Amino acid sequence: MSQRIVTRPLTAEAFAPFGDVIDVSGEPDKMINQGMCGRHHDKAILDFSDGKAGISVFNAQARELPMRLDMVERHPDGSQAFLPLSREPFLVVVAPDENGRPGTPLAFVTAPGQGVNYHRNVWHAVCAPLSEQGQFAVVDRIGDGPNLEEYWFEEDITIQEQ
Amino acid sequence: MSQRIVTRPLTAEAFAPFGDVIDVSGEPDKMINQGMCGRHHDKAILDFSDGKAGISVFNAQARELPMRLDMVERHPDGSQAFLPLSREPFLVVVAPDENGRPGTPLAFVTAPGQGVNYHRNVWHAVCAPLSEQGQFAVVDRIGDGPNLEEYWFEEDITIQEQ
Repeated sequence: MSQRIVTRPLTAEAFAPFGDVIDVSGEPDKMINQGMCGRHHDKAILDFSDGKAGISVFNAQARELPMRLDMVERHPDGSQAFLPLSREPFLVVVAPDENGRPGTPLAFVTAPGQGVNYHRNVWHAVCAPLSEQGQFAVVDRIGDGPNLEEYWFEEDITIQEQ
Repeated sequence: MSQRIVTRPLTAEAFAPFGDVIDVSGEPDKMINQGMCGRHHDKAILDFSDGKAGISVFNAQARELPMRLDMVERHPDGSQAFLPLSREPFLVVVAPDENGRPGTPLAFVTAPGQGVNYHRNVWHAVCAPLSEQGQFAVVDRIGDGPNLEEYWFEEDITIQEQ
């Protein structure tokens, strides 16, 4: 069976069942630095279970659309945030859980200045920059154990642009 | 008394007494995603004391060099990381502590892809983008109390380019 998933722009509302969009949308919660800086406060639900927060940097190779979606993964022990160190868009693919397996995936393309935080144990595709600039700061769990479950699709799933 | 501080490029070595440079320098600690992504693992010493980690977004107005350095601040209860959501350089100013007051400041300018983490209780100037693009993801302590100490300089201190 073959399936085609069409990308849509990333919005907080559509992404809410899977995680948080981290950006400057809306009014700042607080003005700081003598009015020179707006703070949009505490934008992500972080959960590192028995581990602790860490900041790593991912340097990922570009993908191109249309793209075959081979697999998704999830981290049972912690949330994972991707913060792009550039203004380049990237691809965000998530799937609802259906009895321990991923259901039909959803695909989003970010706007400049948008990061995402996958909630703990949410199925998502691997980091997929859509340009040569693939550097991300990643806030995830530092701790023991593999903290990784992969699911390889048998179906032929293609992500394509709208 | 007037003082002139000259900016230098940000390096991990020069910044080490104050915090961590968060970037992709060196070999990745691990290749992930079927070899498509390098993970530079756990690049920052995070310390949130009795609080917890949060991700906020700062949207700061641009500064220009030369710039008057009016004040520095520190956060006694936690570290604070600035992760630029762009490739634009920003200004990083820190100062050693000398008996509870800031000593002579040091000024750095970042390269594209560099973020910083100020260690807990390190004197630093406020977030200072050098371009109109002033969006940063900030990883700092979410918790009770003001977690802020400011020091306003009486001297006339100017930060200028090399």
